[in-house]
Amino acid sequence: MIGFIGGTGPEGKGLATRYAMAGERVFIGSRDKQKGQDVAASISKSFNKQILGGDNEEAARKGDIVIICVPYEGHSEILNQLKTQLKNKTVIDVVAPLVFGKKAISSPKVEEGSAAEQAQLLLPESQVVGAFHNISAHELLKSDSKICCDVIVCSNFDDSKKSVMQLAEKIDGIRGVDGGVLANAKYVEQLTALLLNINKIYKSHSSIRITGI
Amino acid sequence: MIGFIGGTGPEGKGLATRYAMAGERVFIGSRDKQKGQDVAASISKSFNKQILGGDNEEAARKGDIVIICVPYEGHSEILNQLKTQLKNKTVIDVVAPLVFGKKAISSPKVEEGSAAEQAQLLLPESQVVGAFHNISAHELLKSDSKICCDVIVCSNFDDSKKSVMQLAEKIDGIRGVDGGVLANAKYVEQLTALLLNINKIYKSHSSIRITGI
Repeated sequence: MIGFIGGTGPEGKGLATRYAMAGERVFIGSRDKQKGQDVAASISKSFNKQILGGDNEEAARKGDIVIICVPYEGHSEILNQLKTQLKNKTVIDVVAPLVFGKKAISSPKVEEGSAAEQAQLLLPESQVVGAFHNISAHELLKSDSKICCDVIVCSNFDDSKKSVMQLAEKIDGIRGVDGGVLANAKYVEQLTALLLNINKIYKSHSSIRITGI
Repeated sequence: MIGFIGGTGPEGKGLATRYAMAGERVFIGSRDKQKGQDVAASISKSFNKQILGGDNEEAARKGDIVIICVPYEGHSEILNQLKTQLKNKTVIDVVAPLVFGKKAISSPKVEEGSAAEQAQLLLPESQVVGAFHNISAHELLKSDSKICCDVIVCSNFDDSKKSVMQLAEKIDGIRGVDGGVLANAKYVEQLTALLLNINKIYKSHSSIRITGI
């Protein structure tokens, strides 16, 4: 089962929906148990699949793989709370720290280098993988939309990295790309700021493809 | 005429070659005048075009548009020296600051945010544009190679940005993408570090395409 921490936001809902469509079992966690259940019920109804939901603790406990998609503001706090439940699991960090300024969207300095590295420091007994940063939640949520992008996957754990690349490719139109060590997640997270600026200019929902590989 | 500052390195040589092939007049500058002339003569011979070369000062003076492709180590020094010659010109900064570590290639902290922003601070009377960071010099230099990538162009000067997007598209297979303000050049420069790590993993010469725009 894939557990979503903060799964009721656009990115979490989008990924949960796509994985439900791909036949995976998903559990949508939220700070608010009722909200987690409601969002799960609403996706279940739309796709005629049984999707579970509840609080973040249950999502962390039940997930074989757990996806962190909380806002960056609550990132370190929630990981600290779920340390025990996430032990010995592959934890996918989707979080891209962002600052929405008047002129442009930017990527703030993160002491640990990136949200993904922050997660690994807070969860020393988990296998943290950075992935899914550059994929448009808007496109994920449009179930009739043809996704066409790469998911760059970074981790210091090769087996976890490979399994997340495979997991990414279960969504039609996505290619998993090995982005190397977890420290490289910094570039992938920051790329999100660039893509959001491009979205404003082109009024689009952009993503990326790596060419030449 | 397009003037190249530090045009004898792989990126400069690659771009000069492609622009000569596209029918543009190019001048290859170098710290060493003789080397600038020699590299120009060698490209001229290979492509049966008249390409000029000499020192960086002449390249800055003769270029209507000037491309900076020196190593980051010499970046601020050379810009300080050429301030007068670059006045009121569109200056394209191609430089991506990089650190080649044992485990990975990384992007160092740049006080000004990015090399391109450093250039704009040093050249307050020039129109600095960040571009061409993510294009593989190796692919540019293989004249039979089909380029297929986007060049993300960032600047605080809209007219210069547009003219550089058009210039980028004179190379077959390249699309110019409006990357917004010059501060966004940080993400594009840093993306180079990610692509070089991907190159090591895939033994490739990668670049990027923005999808969904």
